Amino acid sequence: MERHFEAELQAIREKLLAMGSLAETMIHKSVRALVDRDEALVQAVLAHEEEMDLLCIEVDDRCFTRLALQQPMASDLRFLVASIKINSDLERMADQAVSIALRARSLIQEPQVKPLIDIPRMATLAQEMVRKSLDAFVRRDPELARAVIEGDDAVDSLRDQVFRELLVYMMADTGTIPRALALILISRNLERIADHATNIAEDVIYIVRGEDVRERGDKELRKGLRVPVGQTPAPPSV
Amino acid sequence: MERHFEAELQAIREKLLAMGSLAETMIHKSVRALVDRDEALVQAVLAHEEEMDLLCIEVDDRCFTRLALQQPMASDLRFLVASIKINSDLERMADQAVSIALRARSLIQEPQVKPLIDIPRMATLAQEMVRKSLDAFVRRDPELARAVIEGDDAVDSLRDQVFRELLVYMMADTGTIPRALALILISRNLERIADHATNIAEDVIYIVRGEDVRERGDKELRKGLRVPVGQTPAPPSV
Repeated sequence: MERHFEAELQAIREKLLAMGSLAETMIHKSVRALVDRDEALVQAVLAHEEEMDLLCIEVDDRCFTRLALQQPMASDLRFLVASIKINSDLERMADQAVSIALRARSLIQEPQVKPLIDIPRMATLAQEMVRKSLDAFVRRDPELARAVIEGDDAVDSLRDQVFRELLVYMMADTGTIPRALALILISRNLERIADHATNIAEDVIYIVRGEDVRERGDKELRKGLRVPVGQTPAPPSV
Repeated sequence: MERHFEAELQAIREKLLAMGSLAETMIHKSVRALVDRDEALVQAVLAHEEEMDLLCIEVDDRCFTRLALQQPMASDLRFLVASIKINSDLERMADQAVSIALRARSLIQEPQVKPLIDIPRMATLAQEMVRKSLDAFVRRDPELARAVIEGDDAVDSLRDQVFRELLVYMMADTGTIPRALALILISRNLERIADHATNIAEDVIYIVRGEDVRERGDKELRKGLRVPVGQTPAPPSV
């Protein structure tokens, strides 16, 4: 019984890893669809989403079954509840990638506003955060989790850079406004993916240390924050 | 023991209700801060967030303690796990309201782009969705939960209307672009609040019927969806 329980926890861990790697693929392909102007990659992302949905339902079921059948010890309990939350963060990352892919599908039918540099950079950072947050989860490594949380700042500053730069294009040529807005919204999708990775990292710290860093993280980031019009002012979990 | 357990579940239910009502207040005040150009309301929202954070930690603790100390029956287990998820949706709604309040603080220092009609309307709808989703949770009412999920469409169409209208302002006068963008992002904050209410409604249906409507909901909404540049194309959970 005990050994079976351990095997089940291991299976959940592996499914979540697979989902993390699928999320990374989806982020990558959605942004490549945009950069390479490749409609086939949009389709690929939509197909991946179906896989993701199935994995998500499976993990939820496994976690609930474990919670229901045994009376897990405190640390296993934290693991299972964190898994349910991580599962839902991964599903929402996939939703964001789908959103990027659909925006890319519209954008590639029109002329490019500008060469894309910071958006692919944001995507790379977001993918890294996803990978590291899941690694931290599997290895129960709070230091790696903290590195993920700190990495969120770099994503936010690229988001601000994308915003400022596209603002200049919009002001100079109103014809670019709809496309520039779509690119701004894509940068927000990437920001939200990074936020979900941050949530996962916070759950890892919670599992390992039984410590809740979420509120403290928010406060540090908001301290003395003065937000220019149009920038995202919000805490990392937004 | 059994009676004590019931009392604890009831306490969790009441805390979540209180958080829902606090979230409504925060949404209301953040949008009033913008419409009435009232800096004091920005401060009020920031103060409410501290309350919300404390409630959130308390609910998490109570749920984990219940999960750890007893071996709950399947229905109580679903209730407790759903409570943990609802707790986190409520906290994130509060983050969105804070984001609106901070944007309002910047906007009210500059001239108004246009009289605000649809954004307050979105706020009213979002507040209703929050209230109804929590009512559905407390009453275990799947019909009311379904009404919440359906209500999300109205919010999305207002979001599109806000977008289209502000686009016209931006095209006509580039000087309005930064402020118009901030208003667009506020409409996205409200959209996300409505999405969190939708998540809660889905959890209610899950608790009551043991049925997972999340994926089906996504698919129906994406069916045949063709997204204009710059619009949000994504499923309701995005």
